[in-house]
Amino acid sequence: MTKPLYTNLNVDALFLGPKSENAVFFREMMDYAVSEHMHWRSGFHPEDATLVTSVDRYEHNYRETLYRTEGILNQLSAKLKNTSIPFFSPRYLGHINSDTLMVSNLAYVMAMMYNPNNCTYEVSPTTTELELESGLDLCRMLGYDPQHAWGHITSGGTVANYEGLWVARNLKTLPFAVSQHPETKELVSHKSQKQLMNMPTAEVLDLISELQKRGIFDEIRNMTCRGTGSKTEILGKLLVPQSKHYSWMKAADILGIGQENIIPLPVNEHYQTDIGKMREITFDLIEKGEPILAMIGVVGTTEVGAIDRIDEVIALRQECEERYGESFYIHVDAAYAGYACSMLLNEQGEFMEYDDLVNYHHALGIIPENISWPKPEVYQSFKALRYVDSITVDPHKVGFIQYSAGAICMKDKRILDLISSRALYVFEESDNQSNSPASNRGILGASIMEGSKAGATAAALWAAHRLLPLNISGYGKVIAAGIVTANQLLDKMANMPPIEVGEYRFKMHIMPTPDFHMINFTFKEVGNASLINHNALNKRIYELCSYSSGRAYSNDFLTSSTILDYKEYGDTPWYYAEKCGFSRSEWEKTRRVYVLRAAVMTHCLRNQEHFEEHWNQLQTIFAKKLTQLLDEEEKKSRQILNREESFLNQPK
Amino acid sequence: MTKPLYTNLNVDALFLGPKSENAVFFREMMDYAVSEHMHWRSGFHPEDATLVTSVDRYEHNYRETLYRTEGILNQLSAKLKNTSIPFFSPRYLGHINSDTLMVSNLAYVMAMMYNPNNCTYEVSPTTTELELESGLDLCRMLGYDPQHAWGHITSGGTVANYEGLWVARNLKTLPFAVSQHPETKELVSHKSQKQLMNMPTAEVLDLISELQKRGIFDEIRNMTCRGTGSKTEILGKLLVPQSKHYSWMKAADILGIGQENIIPLPVNEHYQTDIGKMREITFDLIEKGEPILAMIGVVGTTEVGAIDRIDEVIALRQECEERYGESFYIHVDAAYAGYACSMLLNEQGEFMEYDDLVNYHHALGIIPENISWPKPEVYQSFKALRYVDSITVDPHKVGFIQYSAGAICMKDKRILDLISSRALYVFEESDNQSNSPASNRGILGASIMEGSKAGATAAALWAAHRLLPLNISGYGKVIAAGIVTANQLLDKMANMPPIEVGEYRFKMHIMPTPDFHMINFTFKEVGNASLINHNALNKRIYELCSYSSGRAYSNDFLTSSTILDYKEYGDTPWYYAEKCGFSRSEWEKTRRVYVLRAAVMTHCLRNQEHFEEHWNQLQTIFAKKLTQLLDEEEKKSRQILNREESFLNQPK
Repeated sequence: MTKPLYTNLNVDALFLGPKSENAVFFREMMDYAVSEHMHWRSGFHPEDATLVTSVDRYEHNYRETLYRTEGILNQLSAKLKNTSIPFFSPRYLGHINSDTLMVSNLAYVMAMMYNPNNCTYEVSPTTTELELESGLDLCRMLGYDPQHAWGHITSGGTVANYEGLWVARNLKTLPFAVSQHPETKELVSHKSQKQLMNMPTAEVLDLISELQKRGIFDEIRNMTCRGTGSKTEILGKLLVPQSKHYSWMKAADILGIGQENIIPLPVNEHYQTDIGKMREITFDLIEKGEPILAMIGVVGTTEVGAIDRIDEVIALRQECEERYGESFYIHVDAAYAGYACSMLLNEQGEFMEYDDLVNYHHALGIIPENISWPKPEVYQSFKALRYVDSITVDPHKVGFIQYSAGAICMKDKRILDLISSRALYVFEESDNQSNSPASNRGILGASIMEGSKAGATAAALWAAHRLLPLNISGYGKVIAAGIVTANQLLDKMANMPPIEVGEYRFKMHIMPTPDFHMINFTFKEVGNASLINHNALNKRIYELCSYSSGRAYSNDFLTSSTILDYKEYGDTPWYYAEKCGFSRSEWEKTRRVYVLRAAVMTHCLRNQEHFEEHWNQLQTIFAKKLTQLLDEEEKKSRQILNREESFLNQPK
Repeated sequence: MTKPLYTNLNVDALFLGPKSENAVFFREMMDYAVSEHMHWRSGFHPEDATLVTSVDRYEHNYRETLYRTEGILNQLSAKLKNTSIPFFSPRYLGHINSDTLMVSNLAYVMAMMYNPNNCTYEVSPTTTELELESGLDLCRMLGYDPQHAWGHITSGGTVANYEGLWVARNLKTLPFAVSQHPETKELVSHKSQKQLMNMPTAEVLDLISELQKRGIFDEIRNMTCRGTGSKTEILGKLLVPQSKHYSWMKAADILGIGQENIIPLPVNEHYQTDIGKMREITFDLIEKGEPILAMIGVVGTTEVGAIDRIDEVIALRQECEERYGESFYIHVDAAYAGYACSMLLNEQGEFMEYDDLVNYHHALGIIPENISWPKPEVYQSFKALRYVDSITVDPHKVGFIQYSAGAICMKDKRILDLISSRALYVFEESDNQSNSPASNRGILGASIMEGSKAGATAAALWAAHRLLPLNISGYGKVIAAGIVTANQLLDKMANMPPIEVGEYRFKMHIMPTPDFHMINFTFKEVGNASLINHNALNKRIYELCSYSSGRAYSNDFLTSSTILDYKEYGDTPWYYAEKCGFSRSEWEKTRRVYVLRAAVMTHCLRNQEHFEEHWNQLQTIFAKKLTQLLDEEEKKSRQILNREESFLNQPK
């Protein structure tokens, strides 16, 4: 292994910190950002007359307007301080949120004052370049060849997923269009009808190149669903993990695919797509001659952080190509865990072998000897990302960028021609200068779903990627902090003795071995046999540990929650219910498990000593919350004189 | 007329200003925003141990990381200063850009540090409320009843347009679904097949309410295109002004409608939808039994600022309802001019009568006596907005908010049920507390196209709306500054004597009487009869007045340009070519006119004296640009010794 180029990054120096530890630096840099911009303004044509003099500024209504501005900002600050959620604190372990990078906050402010719009190069010469550069950073991290790949920023993962499916949908209908045109049909005459419906992505892209060479691409493209509208019989079925994030339901609606054309892929007991069932469903569709619009893999579900076996999806596709000459488009939603790829790359950006990787994590000290991440199958999954057609990855999740910053990467940029458009008034100039470098940059707004977009987001992302290279010594180091903390927390939680509160005892149960850094857990009243009561108990605990029981700022601990139910996961949540000690008949009664859910992203607890201290505190908080809950129940039961309405059982 | 409540707003005190005149205030407020947040952090559980001590912060790699951060911000600042566009200056008259409000920039920064995500109330208790409040501000401005309407922020106007069309599309297929279900078909049995295809929006919304009452809505909704995918034969045709902004082409692609199902509505000589032809096309479709998916009106085209006659669209719809019992959905794209509605509202938020309005503008002194805006038909158009089904309006255009902030408003919020979804893990809690106020707020991410989104944008918009009420004395005052300047500029340009440069003379020609504040103009070489040469000349002038001839910062004047061509506007650009003195056969040769395009949004030139000074300077700049151009041509012609390749004619 070669010597690390840069391993000196100090994680605490990246964030403002839970006590605003970097206040002096942050303030200084903010002042720098503002000053630089102000000087830029005043230095622009210094010969121009001052239009607003100091005398003007002294006028009554001038000062009144400034004071009103100040008053509104006072109001806003009061509102924010009153009801915001302290994501920055290690006491917050809930949604996929944590402190965000100082450099990205500062870069955003700096660029925002210039107000670039990355829709078109003409009004964003600086930040369009930063967006393309950051997009390629992500492509490289995911294993794509930057010579052929393309990536860009979206307003979030949901829009990135839409865009991936949009491309897949238009691609799907091209071969059929080619077969319908007298001048082109010979190009696909060697394909059977069924093969035409399920052509490999790379072959369709080659078709595009051939059509362009023949000058007939635009005409054929008008015959795809872009021109004709969705034809569901040609599009076929969309295969989505059963847990289907609601963005896929929305996507099927918006893109005219129809939610009934989604085929849910059952999950295994780890909430990953069940490989065996995925294979069965796929072969069955192919044998029935039903087109497969796309296969969706998820790398980090938002509910439990499960990572699908992308390598198995790739293997399945290869098998289909070899066995039937048929294939399918693969899009991976790695909105949550995508950035974790950086943990698998060495300082040269090379993907490390599994054993080297684990050793290197330990050697660098970013993961202690008693922990190893990722599991071998998760490693294989990340390694296979390079073969999929498109990937969603959210900088505003594990990229530690403030909202809103999603992104999509595509393996082969030729695919853009299926969706690109141009607005004459926006793109004309750069198009005409086909030899100028701008000609490649000007296309941004014409090749994406959105239109106008903040160039400041690109500046934030670019700055973060420059400070934190997308490898083990950059982002890897920050992400590792969360993974290590999650692992240590899991260990403590699993071994915690029951908490005694009065006559009741509560045992914590965790969902075992997550794929990433999301922990799902519940408190179980010892002796309680009712799953419905168990769910009610944990729902109430959530309420006590969230905004919904009053001001989050005065809370000791904040988390989130979710419901794992039959409709979304089949019988999978039953495994957890069983582990907690509930009978099958209890599961049948409600078919849902309410769990507390904590994405552990904090960088503050990676130090063992800090962690131990925090854990001790946490145990006290848990006891306090349970006491509060019992007090309330007591009060309630006295009020309503009906003990059965309480979700706590009679004391044993 | 009642006494104004607040007319004291000083427009210069709203912006940082072209010389950073408000530097002291801006810096002070920025510091306030940062300080408030820092105190919020350090005040959260002060009992918690400091995890990073001052000694830690003194360590080498800690300081190194901070210095690296600084270095990256230095780089970013250098890049921004080198290639950004000085939108803040009155020397910039190009795209729909200008200086942005201090209050919205400051509010954004303030909220960004708390990093709320308006996808769900749970992680944005403050800013979700600000978004809903700002959305209703916009609804009120547009004339909607805030009791029934709903509005929210999108990442831009393009996404807002998608959302409007998404709703329209799903609405379109509901009556057909109702007619297909044995339990509901009697609800529409009084409708003929043709009437079923073109049911009035309000009637479909009443159907939704009825289905919900019967508990069968979800089942029927699955039978709409949401469930089944797009069926173009049911959806019918989308009527879009011929100028069709590329977002509509993208929308027809994305939503599975098909671009071939767009029917372009021809424009008149003012680039507005031709009412007569719109009526003809509509009646023809209805008589042929072809469904009309939606009619799109544009209030402020991005190329010339044309405002469609929305009142005529409403009248047409009413006529269709009366004559045929058929109707259509109307969406208005008011991304550009929507905020100008505030110029028509008095301080009580009431829509003023036309004569009162013109008088009041003069009485307040925001428009001088010799100018009146809007034209009576533009007034009628704004007044009719309250009757359309949904409206796109962009805060990041004439709302003077920094990017990205678009918005959509819908007349009747019941329409949301056609597109709403829910993610269990995101929305469960608030849904369960149906009596808590949160239950209405939690729905945001489930009722819109996007998912995660910056709550900071909502803070920026809310703060702007609080400082600048959406009426004549708030936003009206700022928008008026641009309108007045545009009018004065038009007057000067129309009357400017030809500019003489050596043996050549150049006459400026303007496109007459714009509907809003966008000016289109060209320079014509006196004696030149070739439209092709004319286009080349103006293209070169654009290049000299934009980023494409080098650093924009050192340019004297910056503008934008567009091409008005036959494909998008039919013969309409010919009127302008003719006005410039070109023969019909010249038009036939190229069928396009290259024009310079200036959205006049600057607030700096509303003062007559400043304006005159600026105009004098501008004339000098024009002469200088033309001289530069001639010098280059001269050089080029000497080099290639082929005078014909130059676009300038032989001197007369």
